[in-house]
Amino acid sequence: MQAELIFTGTELLLGHILNTHAQYLGVMLSIMGIEVGLNTTVGDSREAMSRVLQQALGRSSDLIIITGGLGPTTDDITFEVVAEVLGLPLILDQESLKKIKRFFLDRGAIMPESNVKQAYFPRGAKILPNNVGTAPGAVLGFNNKTLIILPGPPNELIPMFEGAVATCLSKKVAGGEVIRYRIFKLTGISESAVQDLLKDMGGQDNPGIAYLAKPGEIQVRVSARGAVSAQVEKLLEDFAGKVRIRLEKHIFACDDDILEDLVGKLLLAKGLTIGVAESCTGGLIAARLTDIPGSSAYFKGGIVSYSNEMKNRILGVSMEILNSYGAVSKETAEAMAVGVRAAAGADLGLAVTGIAGPAGGTAAKPRGLVYIALAAGPITICREHHFPGIRMAVRQGTVNAALNMVRQYLLGKNS
Amino acid sequence: MQAELIFTGTELLLGHILNTHAQYLGVMLSIMGIEVGLNTTVGDSREAMSRVLQQALGRSSDLIIITGGLGPTTDDITFEVVAEVLGLPLILDQESLKKIKRFFLDRGAIMPESNVKQAYFPRGAKILPNNVGTAPGAVLGFNNKTLIILPGPPNELIPMFEGAVATCLSKKVAGGEVIRYRIFKLTGISESAVQDLLKDMGGQDNPGIAYLAKPGEIQVRVSARGAVSAQVEKLLEDFAGKVRIRLEKHIFACDDDILEDLVGKLLLAKGLTIGVAESCTGGLIAARLTDIPGSSAYFKGGIVSYSNEMKNRILGVSMEILNSYGAVSKETAEAMAVGVRAAAGADLGLAVTGIAGPAGGTAAKPRGLVYIALAAGPITICREHHFPGIRMAVRQGTVNAALNMVRQYLLGKNS
Repeated sequence: MQAELIFTGTELLLGHILNTHAQYLGVMLSIMGIEVGLNTTVGDSREAMSRVLQQALGRSSDLIIITGGLGPTTDDITFEVVAEVLGLPLILDQESLKKIKRFFLDRGAIMPESNVKQAYFPRGAKILPNNVGTAPGAVLGFNNKTLIILPGPPNELIPMFEGAVATCLSKKVAGGEVIRYRIFKLTGISESAVQDLLKDMGGQDNPGIAYLAKPGEIQVRVSARGAVSAQVEKLLEDFAGKVRIRLEKHIFACDDDILEDLVGKLLLAKGLTIGVAESCTGGLIAARLTDIPGSSAYFKGGIVSYSNEMKNRILGVSMEILNSYGAVSKETAEAMAVGVRAAAGADLGLAVTGIAGPAGGTAAKPRGLVYIALAAGPITICREHHFPGIRMAVRQGTVNAALNMVRQYLLGKNS
Repeated sequence: MQAELIFTGTELLLGHILNTHAQYLGVMLSIMGIEVGLNTTVGDSREAMSRVLQQALGRSSDLIIITGGLGPTTDDITFEVVAEVLGLPLILDQESLKKIKRFFLDRGAIMPESNVKQAYFPRGAKILPNNVGTAPGAVLGFNNKTLIILPGPPNELIPMFEGAVATCLSKKVAGGEVIRYRIFKLTGISESAVQDLLKDMGGQDNPGIAYLAKPGEIQVRVSARGAVSAQVEKLLEDFAGKVRIRLEKHIFACDDDILEDLVGKLLLAKGLTIGVAESCTGGLIAARLTDIPGSSAYFKGGIVSYSNEMKNRILGVSMEILNSYGAVSKETAEAMAVGVRAAAGADLGLAVTGIAGPAGGTAAKPRGLVYIALAAGPITICREHHFPGIRMAVRQGTVNAALNMVRQYLLGKNS
């Protein structure tokens, strides 16, 4: 199966935003055994979009995915252009209109008139509901080709792709070929070091390995394909098992794990609360934990102790420890963890201190050095980490490792 | 002047690497007044590349930039394809060959035979030397179009673009069409409400308006085009001025403003320090401020006071205030601001408290209600906000509004 992708949005051409969909869809389609032959990015111009779509229809791809331009504003014209090029009328879908109205009502608002256009689709379209925003997507058949139209915002596109679109595509791929994959998310290691660890295992397509690097995170995607579901699953299990053994100590999450959500559920189940003291992450751990609705039930509070003064005064880290061992040390991390547990009145105290860079590193304490401590009951655990990459990568890597440490503790795996 | 960009490389289609050139070249060309009309990404296939280049030559762009495929390996075929499509022979450039040989010699190696191909260029090409790697680029004229061919690695492409290419293009642009734009970044308002405010001003292309929605942020991009730079700038100024008046109270930043960086520079310049108390944003404001290297010079620390207990014990908000007015109130926000200033030992205290949702809202205090307070000298300022959208949008909107409030104060605009 051959695909081509069309990204719409003048902001992409002007470079106002980075096109991350090209990478995301490229990886996801490869895993499904769908070959991407061409990507086109076009602005929000009716004429240019029409021409691009006409040319795509004239090529040999079986699948055309179009992203963006499904919003309520006048420059959102994707469905209008698709309908015009395919010679189809736009039809109001009452069910979608109801959902859009409800979306606003649930948020205590009345739907603005401009959002009505988001309920119009080319005739014959299968509508893909949007559970996150107001813009539904659609699937259309035309001359033996499948057109899939998806909203532009990543937080809307990704769940829609991994839900309804993945189901729809897996049916179409190679006579119902089955694809299964597993994602390992790693931190504290560079992409090339991961590839080195697996270099004798890559090279073939099925089972296959693909990589995706984000700041502070390397994703290793293992996939297997075949005609029979049980065989594919066994192939994946065996191969993923071998990959996992090589990578184990760097894995912080798998597949769709959302660490802050898993930690929250475990805390709730155990009736425990947590407080967080942060130095190099500057509030990112608290921000991740409180991203979960209802987190006030277990998250008591956080202290961003960027100065020694705050570490001493609010967290009670003694000046002796700070002066003898330094702010970035096992001893300080442990004292911060104990201190924040008391300051927040929580059951668990999590603390991080490290050197995010670019400046501040020394030969003895290089950039990327981070200590993560967890005070739990009479015991305080501390781990030393070395995160590669830029400031953002060190900070994000620390957040991932710290949340994973709490999860492992709650699962009884690192006490 | 109109441009289109062709990115070559199967690794881009597979998502193995993120296409950052699209953003880089989009921004750089816009700044030069060159409008990018289309981007295409094509794999390392002779047939597909030929077709893409032929179609590009058939369109109206004045400038075609092609990246990648200039290496020494067999899948590096860009110059061969360009020569074939333009009907030009490939000619060995002795000067380039000498430089490539020297590149290896300087590194204590002998040039492998495969690198000879990097010294062949379509006849008539102006060669762009590569001072970082072995792959020179080239500029070619063809049927009133300019073709610019650049190496794929960013560390080779960027210096070549900013050196020889920028010089070459600035000569061509002079006398061509000029494009200018302004970006207004808004918070506390929905995308459709923004469009309603501007509905009598959109609809035309020049000057034009485009929208981009992110959680807690709507970007309004105003553009103007024309032959004479001074006239275009006046057209943009006049139009952007009218747009600004309509949107003023929601604007938190313009163009490339990075709020946390601007706030940091102002604090440094004035020799002031800041502490932050956060409730609904859960650490995001501290995380944004500490994203800037060197922020420890002015950021003293933050308190994420998710519980009333922490608001009282660490920030010194009295139980009378919390019980009489509630945790989400002007009075609590002000007391938190004063409290965190003392707790962090800072000159300024910034505090936010609000209802991010989805639960927790009431008729009197609906979801999206946020109070932001700034304690500065003898005065404490407090603003009430109503942010639309999901939890993430309320949280991000609050961060933007809070950082803007500090910036406005430091600029002497809201005391």
